[in-house]
Amino acid sequence: MRKNEVKDLYRNHQNYLDKPVTVGGWIRTIRTSKNFGFIELNDGTFFNSIQIVFENDLENFEEISKLTTGSSILVHGTLVKSPGSKQPFEVKSNEVIIKGVSELEYPLQKKRHTFEFLRTIAHLRPRTNTFSAVFRVRSLLAHAIHTFFQEKGFVYVHAPIITTSDAEGAGEMFKVTTLSNENLAKKDYSKDFFGKEAGLTVSGQLNVETYCMAFGKVYTFGPTFRAENSNTGRHAAEFWMIEPEIAFADLNDDMELAEEMTKFIINYVLEKAPEEMEFFNKFIDKGLIERLKHVSSSDFAKVTYTEAIEILEKSNKKFDFPVKWGNDLQTEHERYLTEEHFKKPVFVTDYPKGIKAFYMKLNPDEKTVAAMDLLVPGIGEIIGGSQREENLETLKSKMDELGLSQEDYWWYLDTRKYGTVEHAGFGLGFERMVMYVTGMQNIRDVVSFPRTPKNADF
Amino acid sequence: MRKNEVKDLYRNHQNYLDKPVTVGGWIRTIRTSKNFGFIELNDGTFFNSIQIVFENDLENFEEISKLTTGSSILVHGTLVKSPGSKQPFEVKSNEVIIKGVSELEYPLQKKRHTFEFLRTIAHLRPRTNTFSAVFRVRSLLAHAIHTFFQEKGFVYVHAPIITTSDAEGAGEMFKVTTLSNENLAKKDYSKDFFGKEAGLTVSGQLNVETYCMAFGKVYTFGPTFRAENSNTGRHAAEFWMIEPEIAFADLNDDMELAEEMTKFIINYVLEKAPEEMEFFNKFIDKGLIERLKHVSSSDFAKVTYTEAIEILEKSNKKFDFPVKWGNDLQTEHERYLTEEHFKKPVFVTDYPKGIKAFYMKLNPDEKTVAAMDLLVPGIGEIIGGSQREENLETLKSKMDELGLSQEDYWWYLDTRKYGTVEHAGFGLGFERMVMYVTGMQNIRDVVSFPRTPKNADF
Repeated sequence: MRKNEVKDLYRNHQNYLDKPVTVGGWIRTIRTSKNFGFIELNDGTFFNSIQIVFENDLENFEEISKLTTGSSILVHGTLVKSPGSKQPFEVKSNEVIIKGVSELEYPLQKKRHTFEFLRTIAHLRPRTNTFSAVFRVRSLLAHAIHTFFQEKGFVYVHAPIITTSDAEGAGEMFKVTTLSNENLAKKDYSKDFFGKEAGLTVSGQLNVETYCMAFGKVYTFGPTFRAENSNTGRHAAEFWMIEPEIAFADLNDDMELAEEMTKFIINYVLEKAPEEMEFFNKFIDKGLIERLKHVSSSDFAKVTYTEAIEILEKSNKKFDFPVKWGNDLQTEHERYLTEEHFKKPVFVTDYPKGIKAFYMKLNPDEKTVAAMDLLVPGIGEIIGGSQREENLETLKSKMDELGLSQEDYWWYLDTRKYGTVEHAGFGLGFERMVMYVTGMQNIRDVVSFPRTPKNADF
Repeated sequence: MRKNEVKDLYRNHQNYLDKPVTVGGWIRTIRTSKNFGFIELNDGTFFNSIQIVFENDLENFEEISKLTTGSSILVHGTLVKSPGSKQPFEVKSNEVIIKGVSELEYPLQKKRHTFEFLRTIAHLRPRTNTFSAVFRVRSLLAHAIHTFFQEKGFVYVHAPIITTSDAEGAGEMFKVTTLSNENLAKKDYSKDFFGKEAGLTVSGQLNVETYCMAFGKVYTFGPTFRAENSNTGRHAAEFWMIEPEIAFADLNDDMELAEEMTKFIINYVLEKAPEEMEFFNKFIDKGLIERLKHVSSSDFAKVTYTEAIEILEKSNKKFDFPVKWGNDLQTEHERYLTEEHFKKPVFVTDYPKGIKAFYMKLNPDEKTVAAMDLLVPGIGEIIGGSQREENLETLKSKMDELGLSQEDYWWYLDTRKYGTVEHAGFGLGFERMVMYVTGMQNIRDVVSFPRTPKNADF
């Protein structure tokens, strides 16, 4: 069906003025009087709606006048300058074809709805301004990330979703099975689909490291899972993660990549979705655009964990969690560092080995590892990465210390046996980035159909 | 670490000739004599390796000479014209820094390995020519798909992976749970993570249809799952699928989109990966490039299912499966149609309703539905799509006929209650497209770490 897209009409309206156009979409509002009416029509291609004017010379004028919010129509008409001041142009209709009348109990009537309520109609909420903006920006952010890595020659690897390994701890894994409940009770996994116990991945990193040793520069972008019973605004059981990995690279290269990526995707969205970003800036998070522009134009700061602890200790600030070398930084500490002390994004590096994963490279001091977290104003940690331990013997001792079985990780250890080289990578929780860029406060409001404890509706 | 990428040296070698360069990568082969040696070094940025020459004036000449396939090195040297005829240039080294010596049992010695063997070392196989080409092309194809849809203004939707709905049949679904085996035996899902029985998605279509009614043009690109005990070269338990959905669109719009997409991504890969495609054409599937170019320059044919049955009946061809109106087409039928009869890609449309899904739009004949399959030479069906039934009452009766609960699909039915409009979409199995574009014959050889019955290694 040939129709004009509202985005095109907005961006290039001078080409269409006084010419015939066809638009199709869903009614956001309708106002009628005896002889004419106005419809705000949204076709989904653009954040803004377009005004349709219809008059009583249309043979189905009565029917049109009775249309309700949410109904779908196709309009043939002419794009004309609007006499009103609210919009530069409108469509004067010659024909309004009614596609689908919205039933009267349509839940998205013209009034404010709480985000909590809108979560219960997750299938309809993208028809609202806020969620139309959120999910268009989410889509653009995803493509910005692919574009960034692809233009730099990275190879996109689809890490497996179902796994029999476990990168960080089986306690938080969902079990995946085809056994009947009775057979599960017998714990006989040899009869299960994969012949052994399987679960949903918590990270593609170990897998993608093996590809890094072939392609030099790789990244994953796929769903990951945590069966954590956390009912916070920052946790979901299912979320998407980006994990780049680079060879012949150390922690500095890793931070450079993270900084470049962050700036690229912020600029991409500011450029591609100005209307949506203005909306967030105005209604969701005042100051958002200024903050993002500041981030994309600042040199990110760098501080070691040990220095960061000193800064926090000297801050005379009262924190809920104690500041102590060896403890992980809490969000309040992170936000103090990035918002109050450095006033810009900051990489905290070289964390105590005890609070970081087994595969991180041990520093010469043998107390810290070559890890980095990127903290940004307004949210705290947004990226976590590290140089990896490339030395086979050091890695093995570390695994022994932690009771990890070398047999289970034979293929991971192979990367250190056959042409090992210094390499590094990081993980970016995609939803956290969407929240950061949109100013939305709850992860449930940036995922199309969120999965959280006791909730997998739709 | 600043180094030159081999791709850049190949593409722009005139800029680097007789200048200092640094390259780092993995040794594919090494040949040494008393006073000098040659290394074929692959850095992963490019299909081809680069030749390194080292001479006995290097202080670690002895050590370098003993290096084995798979070892990683960093080379400082000068890019010079090569006296040999096999390559246009080579790196004359000033310094060879040994990064990681490959242990002697390295399984990828210079000899032919079967694909079956290479599957057992899926973590190492991207270091071979074939799999380096496969996985680079896979990455490019993924980006081609995103680029195609994003440039057309489609919104990328991450459909949920864990689901409590079921688009096509629960029998083939993996169960996802955090219950202990003992509690599973009691079948008390109220204690399970999501409070009810959950599984892995088989399709994002129903979810994305709801977003289509907001944005007009959307697509998914994510993993989907089938717990099917099929041990064929075309089936995997975990695979990625692309599902676009367009509103104000009928089956013809759907076919136009599928044709345009297919041509776009073929041209994208032919342009971006000429070396890889030449390799496939020469060693994997002779005639591949010609076939792909033919597809990208042909107008795809269109035939109804009913006409296709007549063609098959008149073909005088002996098929293993009977040709009969009402039966689904088998691969042998599909390949006859596209390869022998039409000799180009062909859309088969308007299938009997009995063999297609409940959501497909009933045609006025009330016997067939507005479905389409795209068949391509060399593989058969590669895309399946349909116009969706947008009429609420027709859809409800269809669901009643099939015993589907309207209560379970309340949110899906809402799309027909609130502003329904004709819409259409299709599904493309990503791995099938990768196989088609590379000529690879087994799905296990186009997935990084394939998951099939009794196999979820790595």
